[in-house]
Amino acid sequence: MLRRLLLLHGPRRHFSSSFSSAFSLSSPTFAVFGANTGVGKTLVSAGLAASLLRSHGASPSTVLYLKPLQTGFPADSDAEFLFRMVPSLLRPSHAVHLAASLDTLSASPSVEIPLPLPEEAAFSYDGEGEVVRKQLACRTLYAWREAVSPHLAAEREGMSVEDAHVRSRLAACLVEGENLGKGNGERGVWKLVETAGGVASPGPSGRLQCDLYRAFRLPTILVGDGRLGGISSTLSAYETLLLRGYDVSAVILEDRGLSNDKFLLSYLRNRVPVLVLPPIPEDPSDDLTDWFCESSSVFGLLKDALQSFHSTRINRLNSMQRKSKDLLWWPFTQHNLVPVDSVTVIDSRCGESFSAYKVKDNKMMMTPQFDACASWWTQGPDSNLQIELARDMGYAAARYGHVMFPENAHEPALRCAELLLEGVGKDWASRVYYSDNGSTAIELALKMAFRKFSLDHGILVDSDKSITNERNIQLKVLALEGSYHGDTLGAMEAQAPSAYTSFLQQPWYSGRGLFLNPPTVFIRNETCTLPLPPWIQHVHLSPGDKCFPSLAEVFCKTRDSSSAADLYSTYISQQLSKFSLSSNSEHIAALIIEPVISDGTNVSCLAALAKSSILRECRNRKIPVIFDEVFTGFWRLGVESASELLGCLPDIACYAKLMTGGIVPLAATVTTEAVFEAFKSDSKLTALLHGHSYSAHAMGCSAAVKAIQWFRDPLTNSNLDFDQMKLNEQYSLNRLHVDHSFLFYHLYY
Amino acid sequence: MLRRLLLLHGPRRHFSSSFSSAFSLSSPTFAVFGANTGVGKTLVSAGLAASLLRSHGASPSTVLYLKPLQTGFPADSDAEFLFRMVPSLLRPSHAVHLAASLDTLSASPSVEIPLPLPEEAAFSYDGEGEVVRKQLACRTLYAWREAVSPHLAAEREGMSVEDAHVRSRLAACLVEGENLGKGNGERGVWKLVETAGGVASPGPSGRLQCDLYRAFRLPTILVGDGRLGGISSTLSAYETLLLRGYDVSAVILEDRGLSNDKFLLSYLRNRVPVLVLPPIPEDPSDDLTDWFCESSSVFGLLKDALQSFHSTRINRLNSMQRKSKDLLWWPFTQHNLVPVDSVTVIDSRCGESFSAYKVKDNKMMMTPQFDACASWWTQGPDSNLQIELARDMGYAAARYGHVMFPENAHEPALRCAELLLEGVGKDWASRVYYSDNGSTAIELALKMAFRKFSLDHGILVDSDKSITNERNIQLKVLALEGSYHGDTLGAMEAQAPSAYTSFLQQPWYSGRGLFLNPPTVFIRNETCTLPLPPWIQHVHLSPGDKCFPSLAEVFCKTRDSSSAADLYSTYISQQLSKFSLSSNSEHIAALIIEPVISDGTNVSCLAALAKSSILRECRNRKIPVIFDEVFTGFWRLGVESASELLGCLPDIACYAKLMTGGIVPLAATVTTEAVFEAFKSDSKLTALLHGHSYSAHAMGCSAAVKAIQWFRDPLTNSNLDFDQMKLNEQYSLNRLHVDHSFLFYHLYY
Repeated sequence: MLRRLLLLHGPRRHFSSSFSSAFSLSSPTFAVFGANTGVGKTLVSAGLAASLLRSHGASPSTVLYLKPLQTGFPADSDAEFLFRMVPSLLRPSHAVHLAASLDTLSASPSVEIPLPLPEEAAFSYDGEGEVVRKQLACRTLYAWREAVSPHLAAEREGMSVEDAHVRSRLAACLVEGENLGKGNGERGVWKLVETAGGVASPGPSGRLQCDLYRAFRLPTILVGDGRLGGISSTLSAYETLLLRGYDVSAVILEDRGLSNDKFLLSYLRNRVPVLVLPPIPEDPSDDLTDWFCESSSVFGLLKDALQSFHSTRINRLNSMQRKSKDLLWWPFTQHNLVPVDSVTVIDSRCGESFSAYKVKDNKMMMTPQFDACASWWTQGPDSNLQIELARDMGYAAARYGHVMFPENAHEPALRCAELLLEGVGKDWASRVYYSDNGSTAIELALKMAFRKFSLDHGILVDSDKSITNERNIQLKVLALEGSYHGDTLGAMEAQAPSAYTSFLQQPWYSGRGLFLNPPTVFIRNETCTLPLPPWIQHVHLSPGDKCFPSLAEVFCKTRDSSSAADLYSTYISQQLSKFSLSSNSEHIAALIIEPVISDGTNVSCLAALAKSSILRECRNRKIPVIFDEVFTGFWRLGVESASELLGCLPDIACYAKLMTGGIVPLAATVTTEAVFEAFKSDSKLTALLHGHSYSAHAMGCSAAVKAIQWFRDPLTNSNLDFDQMKLNEQYSLNRLHVDHSFLFYHLYY
Repeated sequence: MLRRLLLLHGPRRHFSSSFSSAFSLSSPTFAVFGANTGVGKTLVSAGLAASLLRSHGASPSTVLYLKPLQTGFPADSDAEFLFRMVPSLLRPSHAVHLAASLDTLSASPSVEIPLPLPEEAAFSYDGEGEVVRKQLACRTLYAWREAVSPHLAAEREGMSVEDAHVRSRLAACLVEGENLGKGNGERGVWKLVETAGGVASPGPSGRLQCDLYRAFRLPTILVGDGRLGGISSTLSAYETLLLRGYDVSAVILEDRGLSNDKFLLSYLRNRVPVLVLPPIPEDPSDDLTDWFCESSSVFGLLKDALQSFHSTRINRLNSMQRKSKDLLWWPFTQHNLVPVDSVTVIDSRCGESFSAYKVKDNKMMMTPQFDACASWWTQGPDSNLQIELARDMGYAAARYGHVMFPENAHEPALRCAELLLEGVGKDWASRVYYSDNGSTAIELALKMAFRKFSLDHGILVDSDKSITNERNIQLKVLALEGSYHGDTLGAMEAQAPSAYTSFLQQPWYSGRGLFLNPPTVFIRNETCTLPLPPWIQHVHLSPGDKCFPSLAEVFCKTRDSSSAADLYSTYISQQLSKFSLSSNSEHIAALIIEPVISDGTNVSCLAALAKSSILRECRNRKIPVIFDEVFTGFWRLGVESASELLGCLPDIACYAKLMTGGIVPLAATVTTEAVFEAFKSDSKLTALLHGHSYSAHAMGCSAAVKAIQWFRDPLTNSNLDFDQMKLNEQYSLNRLHVDHSFLFYHLYY
């Protein structure tokens, strides 16, 4: 069983669950983050809530204020501050009835018993016209007594909370909040989520605030710092939010006489509005009423900026299906078959799930959508790795930008080469050639193999002469039917004829190969069977060569000397003999195979066949062997390289997809020194040219360095060692199952 | 003159000069950055300096402390603090003679007159053994009176300083520092550069500290924050430094009872040592001697960590030439022709220059090296754009990671398509197909053109039948000799035979095209001449058709009706007539040309030839026209698309290289709706397949969105509006000149 195989060798990767509820975008919802602690997040929340409830017309009937994590409780309670303060700030010119509520969902045992009971209060203000009903709901999700960071409070007071719990409770509150507005004239709800401390302050599990809530990707109000040094801390906090994929909708900060707001406005120009509040009174006895009064126009501007941000965002999201249909040309897609409303609008991804924007029954929803094929097997399924990669991408871009590669060395390219050679290239490879994608990696491998073959077989006696005079020589590959090696015109030539290599798809296709039809293993009822291809159906094979109790048996080395192996060898040898050097100018000059698994279709019985037969016959004939590991490399099958399963080694191997965690295009063609030596001479014209890979992009190599190390040993390379990072085997197994749903489909069909 | 052409239409990009002196890596040099202001940078500098001067054995004889920007001067003077404090902290067990000096290079007019004179002091300590001579030099480069951010002080006190001046003076001081150690037993110099405020605090010009010194990329000591909220501000500051390409060699922070150091150590595990200092006395009358005494072991650890960082870095740099030669396989390179010591070790890039590590006469140097070919014409030459891109890369990676593309929409892909269609595709294109590099973009263009041609000419009557039965049809391109369209096997088929398409380089090459030899313009002595190709040398052309007073004349529209145009038309028509539909199965099914300039070689006279002749003849025959704009797109020639110079439009155009500012591989094939429509049917098999572009990487598209907007209007899209951002025309011109040195070489040869 491949399943067992996967468990045997791993799974080496770990996973963290991410948020998995849909939530509505109909109500504007903002997160309030602080550039530091003590910069006035709660004052901003209160001022904004008052401004929202005070305003007329299209204003919301309801404000839901959520404080997920509160320390210093109950002496400090930001929810209570809003509950008490906001009603006093409503002085509308029309009649208002405000219902306010305050509650706390969980508190640590150290918080005084009993937990403060939910409170409700009602306020009526006289004014002109009909009475307008409004509602303010203030809720604390988790509270601790000590006024320290939640991770310390959680540890000291014995109430730790897992990230997933914080997220699911927050999600539930946000969903519940949708219904609060009902009955109040349906004029909508605004929701504010005030975080704890600064943007990167730890939550109860140690996860940073910005990471804890990332799956929601709520638009953010950044409360900046008006003090000396505040420009720096505000910009750094802003960058930390960007490095988590947040959109900052507004920056607001206190005026401390240093004009920090002016500098920030200039620096962030065209991106984010920057608002400035009057100095906050430092006298603790001040009830702040005057300050809020003085600030009300600023909060009005903040409300307008957020409203505008929200409308712009929704309008854009609503337009994306139509615009995509109109402007984009998707690969592998017949556009006629894609109705506008079936286009998936992806707002973001967090680990294994996309956030997809959908409109159903006039409700605008952000819906998690599991990326079941790991974005075509390129994605490393880990939300922690995603953030690590993001930071590395920023660093590599800033450090290197674009760096020309020939005759140059830079750290990411060199380090990546070292990791490849000590990993997938262990015991055989010594050179790394970078290009942009799996298909170009294959084309390079073909060029390399052909040169090596030509040299070994005396085809290139005189390299000067050969430049012009060898056009009568036809080099072909030995490949397998049903294999896939990429979609550039050259890579397609190494594939057997099919609908995908038709005139419509590859007008220059001629199929430059000998394409064998190998026996393929199918698994049904826990037993592996081997439907025989036509060319050996007439031969008697023992049942042990056609039926295996487990996949391990299929890969078993003792089969190398079975009767089937002899049969295969004979057949392959016959086929290859047709291309003898003396008889014609056609040569089989390379073997190219996908070890173990053809791209998402079958577990080929290459264990027996390839090892004992094809590979041996090619070795005997000095035909270079190429492994196409674009799909299988880097533990996709539980081992770093599928060579480990096959138990034999190539001359050349190609890697891409998962190599960078999918984030940036990069491919590597890894070879032996003997292949490399075949290109050595005193002429530049005999060097290997491949124009579009002048660069070995520092970005791609940096991503690969991070991703390969991470996959190799995720727990060591993680930056967190908290409980939720522990390997959840059941979850991993499910993940791998779905990840390879294509594969398993074929195993069980 | 092309030069005039460039000026006429631009230059649209702006440039900021970057640091341009080499500096030594022989002496360990570190920058001291703060997570915020007031976190104790100067105390750390002093403690470290004392620890360095105190230690024995391999310790340095000299410490140079530089404070480039000091406000609050002279009451606040960090250099003076070290000058007074450090000698008192030396209590060595062996005899020491310490010479200390203090000076200030420039002060604003508001600083009390006269400027404090340089001071010197000598201290001798009794101890065992021979007297060891040590030296401490403390220097302030610029000082302002008011204790505010340098940008405010500079504005208020009338002493503004340009970034370039700060950098060049700092560079001079660092170079000078090399010699300080001489005569003191040559036991080396350590240099410390203490920045002002937090990592992102503005310097006198408004440039952030982290940006101001970026070209030096000094290894960094980050002084963190031990207070409540300090985890957040320390991590954010750390990320801001990473987003500028800095390596943080150590984090050190004060213990304020919150165990911030423990959390940071865990979070940054395996990356950066985190050290914790005892609480700093808050009483201003405390002379800190006891605190320093208590801290000395921590500073010893810091010194060791930095020493280790420095040695590791130097060892790695020293090994890179050898390792690169051993492990890498460079494109376009005959490795035999590259001696080990000629490999360029690129430590980083800043705008237009690399920092290259070189060892000369046993001196280890970091040397700026101008990137004269803009890394093969992919790099957008702007250090500000580089930082903007870095931030965007981090954001895109965090927000999207890898996103599968078919039938999906995401903002970067859609926005990039909009920008392309309103820019290079203006007035003609309506669809964007993404792939990974110029070569694959060309292959896609060929597939598109061939399908369009087949449909228009009735070759594909029955699409089902055609899948298998059209192999007798040979589609070819019309192309120009000397053109270059990429190095994938398929793209090479569209190029004329040459050494680069030889059997050695492309074993499957057959040259599937009709390759014309067009007249090419050469410029000498300000005059453009047109050496005629063999096929029209026998014809009489008027001198006005062979010689032009300026390049503008070459592109002049009135030449469309000249006698040369008729001649070309006739010739081309003759050539194309050989491929008539009735006579054989070979068709010219696409025209592919590089408009204006062949890849770095010639300014082809396509203005006259292509417009009036080739293009017209192809249009007449319904042969789709492909513009290969991989090299010329996005203002490389002063206009967004070379179509603007040619004055005519293609059916398909290909873009890559500069599109993302070079930072991430991405290409776009842009087409008309008519080409797109040619692929529409009810069968998925007739769609355009191109496997390696399943993704339309969010990273590449995000980079393209930023870069295209930036190139289009750099001043509007800049985040800075300070003086040094203004367009420096002279500099730009030089830059473009060198940028196109290859081109100019051919213009003037």
